[in-house]
Amino acid sequence: MKKIWQKDKTLTNQLVNKFTVGKDLDFDDRLAKYDVIGSLAHCKMLAEVGLISAEESQELQSVLNEILKEIENNSFKIDPEAEDIHSQIESILIEKLGSTGKKIHTARSRNDQVLLNIKLYLLDEIREIGELTDELFQILIQLASQNKDHLMPGYTHFQIAMPSSFGLWFSAYAEALVDDLDLLLSVKNIINKNPLGSAAGYGSSFPIDRKSTSYHLNFKTLNYNSIYAQMTRGKSEKLLASSMSVLAGTLSRFSYDVCLYLSQNFNFISFPKEFTTGSSIMPHKKNPDIFELVRARCNRIQALPNELILLTNNLPSGYHRDMQLSKEILFPAIDSLKECLEILIYTLPNIEIKEGILDDEKYKYLFSVEKINEEVKNGNSFRDAYVKVGNAIENNEFEYDAKDLNHTHQGSIGNLCLEEITHHFHKISSKLLA
Amino acid sequence: MKKIWQKDKTLTNQLVNKFTVGKDLDFDDRLAKYDVIGSLAHCKMLAEVGLISAEESQELQSVLNEILKEIENNSFKIDPEAEDIHSQIESILIEKLGSTGKKIHTARSRNDQVLLNIKLYLLDEIREIGELTDELFQILIQLASQNKDHLMPGYTHFQIAMPSSFGLWFSAYAEALVDDLDLLLSVKNIINKNPLGSAAGYGSSFPIDRKSTSYHLNFKTLNYNSIYAQMTRGKSEKLLASSMSVLAGTLSRFSYDVCLYLSQNFNFISFPKEFTTGSSIMPHKKNPDIFELVRARCNRIQALPNELILLTNNLPSGYHRDMQLSKEILFPAIDSLKECLEILIYTLPNIEIKEGILDDEKYKYLFSVEKINEEVKNGNSFRDAYVKVGNAIENNEFEYDAKDLNHTHQGSIGNLCLEEITHHFHKISSKLLA
Amino acid sequence: MKKIWQKDKTLTNQLVNKFTVGKDLDFDDRLAKYDVIGSLAHCKMLAEVGLISAEESQELQSVLNEILKEIENNSFKIDPEAEDIHSQIESILIEKLGSTGKKIHTARSRNDQVLLNIKLYLLDEIREIGELTDELFQILIQLASQNKDHLMPGYTHFQIAMPSSFGLWFSAYAEALVDDLDLLLSVKNIINKNPLGSAAGYGSSFPIDRKSTSYHLNFKTLNYNSIYAQMTRGKSEKLLASSMSVLAGTLSRFSYDVCLYLSQNFNFISFPKEFTTGSSIMPHKKNPDIFELVRARCNRIQALPNELILLTNNLPSGYHRDMQLSKEILFPAIDSLKECLEILIYTLPNIEIKEGILDDEKYKYLFSVEKINEEVKNGNSFRDAYVKVGNAIENNEFEYDAKDLNHTHQGSIGNLCLEEITHHFHKISSKLLA
Amino acid sequence: MKKIWQKDKTLTNQLVNKFTVGKDLDFDDRLAKYDVIGSLAHCKMLAEVGLISAEESQELQSVLNEILKEIENNSFKIDPEAEDIHSQIESILIEKLGSTGKKIHTARSRNDQVLLNIKLYLLDEIREIGELTDELFQILIQLASQNKDHLMPGYTHFQIAMPSSFGLWFSAYAEALVDDLDLLLSVKNIINKNPLGSAAGYGSSFPIDRKSTSYHLNFKTLNYNSIYAQMTRGKSEKLLASSMSVLAGTLSRFSYDVCLYLSQNFNFISFPKEFTTGSSIMPHKKNPDIFELVRARCNRIQALPNELILLTNNLPSGYHRDMQLSKEILFPAIDSLKECLEILIYTLPNIEIKEGILDDEKYKYLFSVEKINEEVKNGNSFRDAYVKVGNAIENNEFEYDAKDLNHTHQGSIGNLCLEEITHHFHKISSKLLA
Repeated sequence: MKKIWQKDKTLTNQLVNKFTVGKDLDFDDRLAKYDVIGSLAHCKMLAEVGLISAEESQELQSVLNEILKEIENNSFKIDPEAEDIHSQIESILIEKLGSTGKKIHTARSRNDQVLLNIKLYLLDEIREIGELTDELFQILIQLASQNKDHLMPGYTHFQIAMPSSFGLWFSAYAEALVDDLDLLLSVKNIINKNPLGSAAGYGSSFPIDRKSTSYHLNFKTLNYNSIYAQMTRGKSEKLLASSMSVLAGTLSRFSYDVCLYLSQNFNFISFPKEFTTGSSIMPHKKNPDIFELVRARCNRIQALPNELILLTNNLPSGYHRDMQLSKEILFPAIDSLKECLEILIYTLPNIEIKEGILDDEKYKYLFSVEKINEEVKNGNSFRDAYVKVGNAIENNEFEYDAKDLNHTHQGSIGNLCLEEITHHFHKISSKLLA
Repeated sequence: MKKIWQKDKTLTNQLVNKFTVGKDLDFDDRLAKYDVIGSLAHCKMLAEVGLISAEESQELQSVLNEILKEIENNSFKIDPEAEDIHSQIESILIEKLGSTGKKIHTARSRNDQVLLNIKLYLLDEIREIGELTDELFQILIQLASQNKDHLMPGYTHFQIAMPSSFGLWFSAYAEALVDDLDLLLSVKNIINKNPLGSAAGYGSSFPIDRKSTSYHLNFKTLNYNSIYAQMTRGKSEKLLASSMSVLAGTLSRFSYDVCLYLSQNFNFISFPKEFTTGSSIMPHKKNPDIFELVRARCNRIQALPNELILLTNNLPSGYHRDMQLSKEILFPAIDSLKECLEILIYTLPNIEIKEGILDDEKYKYLFSVEKINEEVKNGNSFRDAYVKVGNAIENNEFEYDAKDLNHTHQGSIGNLCLEEITHHFHKISSKLLA
Repeated sequence: MKKIWQKDKTLTNQLVNKFTVGKDLDFDDRLAKYDVIGSLAHCKMLAEVGLISAEESQELQSVLNEILKEIENNSFKIDPEAEDIHSQIESILIEKLGSTGKKIHTARSRNDQVLLNIKLYLLDEIREIGELTDELFQILIQLASQNKDHLMPGYTHFQIAMPSSFGLWFSAYAEALVDDLDLLLSVKNIINKNPLGSAAGYGSSFPIDRKSTSYHLNFKTLNYNSIYAQMTRGKSEKLLASSMSVLAGTLSRFSYDVCLYLSQNFNFISFPKEFTTGSSIMPHKKNPDIFELVRARCNRIQALPNELILLTNNLPSGYHRDMQLSKEILFPAIDSLKECLEILIYTLPNIEIKEGILDDEKYKYLFSVEKINEEVKNGNSFRDAYVKVGNAIENNEFEYDAKDLNHTHQGSIGNLCLEEITHHFHKISSKLLA
Repeated sequence: MKKIWQKDKTLTNQLVNKFTVGKDLDFDDRLAKYDVIGSLAHCKMLAEVGLISAEESQELQSVLNEILKEIENNSFKIDPEAEDIHSQIESILIEKLGSTGKKIHTARSRNDQVLLNIKLYLLDEIREIGELTDELFQILIQLASQNKDHLMPGYTHFQIAMPSSFGLWFSAYAEALVDDLDLLLSVKNIINKNPLGSAAGYGSSFPIDRKSTSYHLNFKTLNYNSIYAQMTRGKSEKLLASSMSVLAGTLSRFSYDVCLYLSQNFNFISFPKEFTTGSSIMPHKKNPDIFELVRARCNRIQALPNELILLTNNLPSGYHRDMQLSKEILFPAIDSLKECLEILIYTLPNIEIKEGILDDEKYKYLFSVEKINEEVKNGNSFRDAYVKVGNAIENNEFEYDAKDLNHTHQGSIGNLCLEEITHHFHKISSKLLA
């Protein structure tokens, strides 16, 4: 299959083609479905404004729907000879419908076509990330609820600081997901605007109706300005990458905590053997490879926005081919993030919390603030109580009974506010998954 | 003034102090006001829950309000001997009120205090960035409106592509600001949650009422979980940096366009002499230094999120002193972004658009797509028309009269949709500036 | 094939395995050869120090050499069931030699084995990058030499500044490659140190001789300290990525120049049709896709060091599984850089330089500095001459005849110093390729 | 003082000036000295080639030497009214010498002048970083030597892995500095090339002798090509930032180890009270703020190369004003790196190593590999011994006596090779500090 736009001259050298296509074909199977969906909306609109006849529109839609079915059945084959998925679909239309097929590209450019495909694809992926985040959230809340009375040391500066609990620890990450999902929702709303009709970035002289395609494609609104619509190429990817990066930051930190707490020097938690890995030379080890790799993958994901900025920055307005690489940067990272969420969802319910952690002598000083607070409740000023307890510690006279702990305020170990956190999460997730 | 928490022993070496304080004092004057505002809310609440008496609360508020007035009058002096602004304010309270002053730090840690100060400061800066963005938006819309019929070439791949207009170009960047402000608004909403009461990240045993301080501080809601509240240190900064980065990306690209269009090889626009800079050895030059420096500063700002990720990443939960540097990374960048917006607001209304740009022979082919579209409107298929026009170009037979241009669809040069864009912008800015 | 270190219990869940292996198997074919080469050196040394017998060593070497031959013939099949290439090779040895096979892993850990493989692989890739850079250098020098008298405008701030030439332009990038290759050579020297024998990062109690394996593997010296040897995992990758980033920066900038100069607004150069790409809707366009994609790929490569820092930063000393991802980050980028060099080597000799560029009126002011310099040579001070010529320009009285140009100093358009630049390049490339 | 190149018209708006100058004046005091040194070499050469008379050269040198003395005595005042330090120095020459003063800028542009100043400054800073690194190296080697028999656990995956020692740990970081300094040396050699004479990036028509200024300025060689010389602006900064980043990576990791080992959960080391910081609410804490801030600052430094790439990338060849910001990005980071080295040099000798660390029961399994190795030495194959020891551990039958440890190979705990490492370091540092 030759390139449709070659004006019948096959001049382009194979080498050039190989270099310029690069890894693009690897990602075409993700976009095929959206190309067809976009084309369906486009040809409905073309008929509405009279650029093609109702009959032509029907013929085009009929073939497009066949292709869509094949794609959904996984029976659609990507032609390795085709320039790309977009050319292949157009070629099928031409092959089956002759000159009617040639009309599908009326008032459309490869630029707005690809832009649309990518946006539709990203919107679907955002939903999937949202669903997985929702599942992880439930697990964290459940673990928090189950372990709300299970105490652990809280650290600052890696120093033993104040009493914490597994309930507080798990639900901290649950609440982090509230904000992460909120950012993802905002990004979804920004992406969720129709670019179709911006053509190569300067619109077209055809009297198309961009509100109609917005309607057919369920977009909330349009990217009005054609130049700006074109600028959303790269920007949409960057926005999604930014919000993925924030979510990945949460998962990375959680995984770091897990790796640390699994160390024999903390020994707060464990996992059944099948979730850890052995060593090729040390038979006693149970390595937290899953969590190290979630951390590592999520740290890669945090590098994404910067990589996309380096790709797109200092290019003046107007399309540049550089944009092509946004696919190979972002798409595998989306897969990777979803895999991280999935493995956490699968692994986390198996976590085992160690008993009696605070019995160890070294955790005694966790309660120094409690002691100060007691003094304060008894009328001492905070600063004076601080000095008194500090002196007791220095003179090895510090004693405290953990059973006296009584934290009551919102977000403390005695009052986790899991319902409030869950309420906030659901308000966001219901919008995101709507 | 000695450090309050030193238990009366001044052991800490000067060198250590110098190194650990670093540039922190440079940023304290920004936070002073918020420290007082936070302390006011805190002491109201302390009285409400009975941790201090109503009288003590009145005394504390009275001194705090005096300090606040001094700060607002710029008569408050930061004590270079104080450890930091927070210690200084507490010291003043102790000095003036004796043991009552020592009660202000009850149920509070330096951690949640600083966290609160930074959040309040960032929220104010977000508003200021929003106001400046609003001004720039108005100017871009006005320039678009004034120049809506002024044609210019549109480029793709740096190649002359299709007819564009100054109206389309200016309003493209106006519409970009819609999305940029929307992201900023989302970030504002995420930051706009009360962390006070999370103490050192594990809450406290005092029966404080965090909803009360939220109310006094006008927060929409709380960061409930104390560990998560602590995690918002670094995360709030990262989120704001991300949205600043997106806005900076818009300003950077716009400035790149301006630098390019000012080149004699484009010669689309000019500025009065006083907005350009000469050369130390070439007397004919008018260099676009303002726009190069807006671009450069905005490119620095785009590096921010990555820098903050490098600072905070792979640190397990719980406060680490590393967080201190987030101030010296983010705060000057906020200033810089505002200065970029200000100079653009000041400079842009002086832009001069050149007349007769499209008269140059090389822009003739801009209209090749128009010619194809005419053929299509006359019944030819797009693909056949493409070949026909391509052959005409190859044979030097291509002709087109620019006066025939008639773009009508939403977001095209003939239909800029400035009202719709403005409507969307105002919906967002009114929320942001509320 | 089961994991050798599983102590006969196949507990590890399939899912965990899939997640932890990730994309690792994709890169194993690159490492197979080096695994065998490393094992050959290791078993020679084991016999030398008496840990295995000379006979055992011979048997092991014989099977290893067979495997090596298969790998070099491309007849070696990677077993998809094997945990990784290292396990597969060890399994073959055990299968063929029984208990002798089980001795190959004596005094070795998977950690130092993989570390060694990666270093050997990187050293080979450095050579290949060096060879391609050498080819590109030759082409640039040749183009510079051929076009040394062909004038073009030189720009600063995108403003027409002073006379330049294609000779100066091409050889600027040639000289850039001198520094880029020098950095690559330094990185090669740092990587070129033997890590074998560091075991899991803490050495071993076997009386191995690390100088012997260094000798057998042609390493210049050792990474002595076992902990440090282990730290070179990630660091070697980061160092290579840094030097690749610098080289990529050169290629990216060159490609940007090419894209700009191909624009009709500059029109300094062109390429035969087969090296450019058409547009799907604009038949007159010849897009510089090759150079846009070289630029884009090289900009991705410039993101590499940061990505590797994010992966490895804030991990304390001692191996972490996170390191695994360094392969999937770095290895495809090495391929991509080589492909960029190859396409430039293939494309660049076809560049066509336009004639008569400086005839255009707008380039007249290029010569204003020349005019000033003439005044200075005639005894005027620079500052006074500057004002005089500036006034002439302002009054439209400026004239200059380009034929009077006479630049003579080193590195000017009249004295390109191509021999000196070539001499410096060869001194470095001969060391790198030695 | 007005701008010399303003052709007597002071049009430039104050605002524009404030924005474009930005923070530049803050860095001028660093460059003043080098500006004079560069001007001295330049005017010697101007006389040599006859562009000024020997007498004029003497007069210029005499005033320049006076200024240099003032700068070295710290009695030179930067004029806040001057555009920049370069203009100020030229103005002094003009003021004192009249028309002779106006000749200093002959055959020179602000571009190559600043380029030269920055290179000379960076070369001095490289030497200072080298000297501090040398001091830190000595301390680490000494600590390694003093503690070579002091055992500690070695970790992989945060899991207790194999026996290590403080000697091995300290000298690991010493050896890291060998490679870090080697990279710094390479970067020094690349920067150490004379750019003077490249003028605004396209050379000049004056018959200057660039080898002469190279000689007077002690440069090893030239950046020959004028365009390339100009491209080293930004590139030199990027190269130095890259090597600073690698050194910072070493210091950051070391500091992370220290913070971890100071945690009560490791409790391997301590520092006298004056090197740690207390908590505002927890009197028992001794926070490792110094090391957290070294880590944090070094992590910022690791962000530098990326920030400089974002600043300079996708700008075509030829100077752009964007380059100005490289100073405010790089210069404070150089200070910060030196301060990190200094505080480590000051603090580290006070480190206290805890006794009896390995007595804790949890460290018993450190010796499992030792046990396997003993089996192997007794004739068992590694794989069989691994299974046997693994079973003993599983059945709680594992026993080992740490006194039996006998590591002998290069780079193991029994053979640290401190002399070899020191030898390599000195070979590099003697070149760097030459």
